[in-house]
Amino acid sequence: MGAGSEESEVPPKIEPVTPEAEKALRVRRGWNVAMADRKALISVIGGSDSAPPEALVLAGEVGFLIARADAVLVCGGLNGVMEAACKGAKRGGGTTVGILPGPDAAAANPWVDIPVVTAMSTARNAIVVRTGDAIIAIDGSFGTLTEIAYALDLGKKVFALRSWELEKLDVSRELFVPVRTAREAVEGAVGEAHRVR
Amino acid sequence: MGAGSEESEVPPKIEPVTPEAEKALRVRRGWNVAMADRKALISVIGGSDSAPPEALVLAGEVGFLIARADAVLVCGGLNGVMEAACKGAKRGGGTTVGILPGPDAAAANPWVDIPVVTAMSTARNAIVVRTGDAIIAIDGSFGTLTEIAYALDLGKKVFALRSWELEKLDVSRELFVPVRTAREAVEGAVGEAHRVR
Amino acid sequence: MGAGSEESEVPPKIEPVTPEAEKALRVRRGWNVAMADRKALISVIGGSDSAPPEALVLAGEVGFLIARADAVLVCGGLNGVMEAACKGAKRGGGTTVGILPGPDAAAANPWVDIPVVTAMSTARNAIVVRTGDAIIAIDGSFGTLTEIAYALDLGKKVFALRSWELEKLDVSRELFVPVRTAREAVEGAVGEAHRVR
Amino acid sequence: MGAGSEESEVPPKIEPVTPEAEKALRVRRGWNVAMADRKALISVIGGSDSAPPEALVLAGEVGFLIARADAVLVCGGLNGVMEAACKGAKRGGGTTVGILPGPDAAAANPWVDIPVVTAMSTARNAIVVRTGDAIIAIDGSFGTLTEIAYALDLGKKVFALRSWELEKLDVSRELFVPVRTAREAVEGAVGEAHRVR
Repeated sequence: MGAGSEESEVPPKIEPVTPEAEKALRVRRGWNVAMADRKALISVIGGSDSAPPEALVLAGEVGFLIARADAVLVCGGLNGVMEAACKGAKRGGGTTVGILPGPDAAAANPWVDIPVVTAMSTARNAIVVRTGDAIIAIDGSFGTLTEIAYALDLGKKVFALRSWELEKLDVSRELFVPVRTAREAVEGAVGEAHRVR
Repeated sequence: MGAGSEESEVPPKIEPVTPEAEKALRVRRGWNVAMADRKALISVIGGSDSAPPEALVLAGEVGFLIARADAVLVCGGLNGVMEAACKGAKRGGGTTVGILPGPDAAAANPWVDIPVVTAMSTARNAIVVRTGDAIIAIDGSFGTLTEIAYALDLGKKVFALRSWELEKLDVSRELFVPVRTAREAVEGAVGEAHRVR
Repeated sequence: MGAGSEESEVPPKIEPVTPEAEKALRVRRGWNVAMADRKALISVIGGSDSAPPEALVLAGEVGFLIARADAVLVCGGLNGVMEAACKGAKRGGGTTVGILPGPDAAAANPWVDIPVVTAMSTARNAIVVRTGDAIIAIDGSFGTLTEIAYALDLGKKVFALRSWELEKLDVSRELFVPVRTAREAVEGAVGEAHRVR
Repeated sequence: MGAGSEESEVPPKIEPVTPEAEKALRVRRGWNVAMADRKALISVIGGSDSAPPEALVLAGEVGFLIARADAVLVCGGLNGVMEAACKGAKRGGGTTVGILPGPDAAAANPWVDIPVVTAMSTARNAIVVRTGDAIIAIDGSFGTLTEIAYALDLGKKVFALRSWELEKLDVSRELFVPVRTAREAVEGAVGEAHRVR
């Protein structure tokens, strides 16, 4: 749809937005977008095309449950676990953010609402992790390991579903939490997101 | 609100998301999140604390009109023009994305719905520009000039409101379009966003 | 040449480098690599393949003079002004650093001694500017304008040779200094580099 | 030392650098800076202040041997393993590159010849890894793990000295090679660097 028809709904004269007018309107209309009200952001990381079918099923459930918990799904925006999670989140009525490695928004999977275009290749992995309040890892190879390590370096909790087994390396279960179901992962991550705010 | 109460709404057993089940559900429920339906993203760039009051009024109007045109507002997430534009967009019922230079989501202005945390300082300016389908520049100093230049380098149109006067340097008006009102800026940018998709 | 033959020159037993041993050695041998002794780094920015022949000649002179002033040449590592400047610096016996936008060191021009591989596309422009103590701009289009604007935003002096004419926009000549010869550019930039340390 | 005295050595008139003149000079003077002649770049990654004394001793030996193998040392530019390795490389007569996370070259350890200033926080870890032809990991925590994972993701060999024990996770020893001495690490890395070119 073109912008023209949208624009015709806009009132021809808009009141200047002075702080006073703004405050008055805000009180009158009950706006409330303060930081505490911002939705939790949960980053889902994991393998792309190489992910096995079970991982994709888990990712879809995780995405759905993130949406149902009224949180925003953040991911790398491509296929595999990322796409399955986005699809699940859209099924749950949620919002999805895809932080893309390449220069083109069209590379985002079709379930991404907001493609963030970095053109920074895998350096964008750091942004995926920093943007999430908590992290859920599903399956995944070395790219996912960069993201897990970034999270742990930042002290962000990672809930791991059939992913890297860092507990074998004595990584603390305070930070790296192996879980077995999508529900455990999302309950853990959303709880953590609300805790760290 | 904690995650617990949210989670209690989630059905205890979620059907595995097979492609077939997904297709059937999609047809039944009329989901439609294909790429063509993705909302336009308009990046608003401009000065932070140093912006004069007139620029802030314009930014508020621009944000409001972007929201009314059903587009998503993208910005650098901080104060000044960025905050005024986000405030306007929230007044218009829109969605706002703030691509932050620092390591902390709490630095986002309170009208940012989705803070993207880059920790990449002003290198994030490139991401602000790449993420928008079209650009609106309001006021602004050298940081804004980096963003205008990135846009022009990518062949993205910039609509300029009381901003840099690059037409003095013979920059083509095909790419760099000085405008005089918030409405001109938003109509131009939203039209361009729909054109380039 | 393989590493093997190189390695045969290495003494079979290396003394552990304790702080005391290190200090003793340092005093005995007169090592002195303190920060004050670090060479100045001058970033040369400008057009790639589209640069006109006169710009390439200027770039070559600039590179040569940077080397002769015992400074290190920093650039974006590709062709055009960047390559001509690197070639000039090597002729002058200097060292060249190329901060590349792509993922492959092989994209560096053959006169780059040290290719830094960012894979961050034009976001690397910010790194080129931050790494230089002072900046010389030669010719150049919008990519160069992003770099000039980054430099001005950081308060770094830019010496401009046949480049953007920002003085038309009333940018202070304290920061943006139009010059007419390679010698003026390099004397200004090297002087500035030593001043800001 | 100021630039003035250096500049006085520069010949007052520099010949324009035409391709023909350049070729003639090149032949006459035996210049040879083609890509094959570029020195190998070895990235050394590892812990900062928290590194134990044994790791610092190893890092110093590694740096020294890299320099003796005529390779360039690349690192994150800060303290701990990075500083010890740079110190060792300078003792060996080598060149050191420090790719810094912050906005200030002054944060580089005093043994860094060329500080590359990214201001991109830990996203610079990706650049440290991409810039090296091969990687040596010494000790290190989660930050180092991001770098190891980036290397493996890119198919770059990592030689590990008292570092993460990824072999417990069945990571292939083709890519991740635990070694026991500085010499093993450097011989492996330099050999690999020459192999991959």
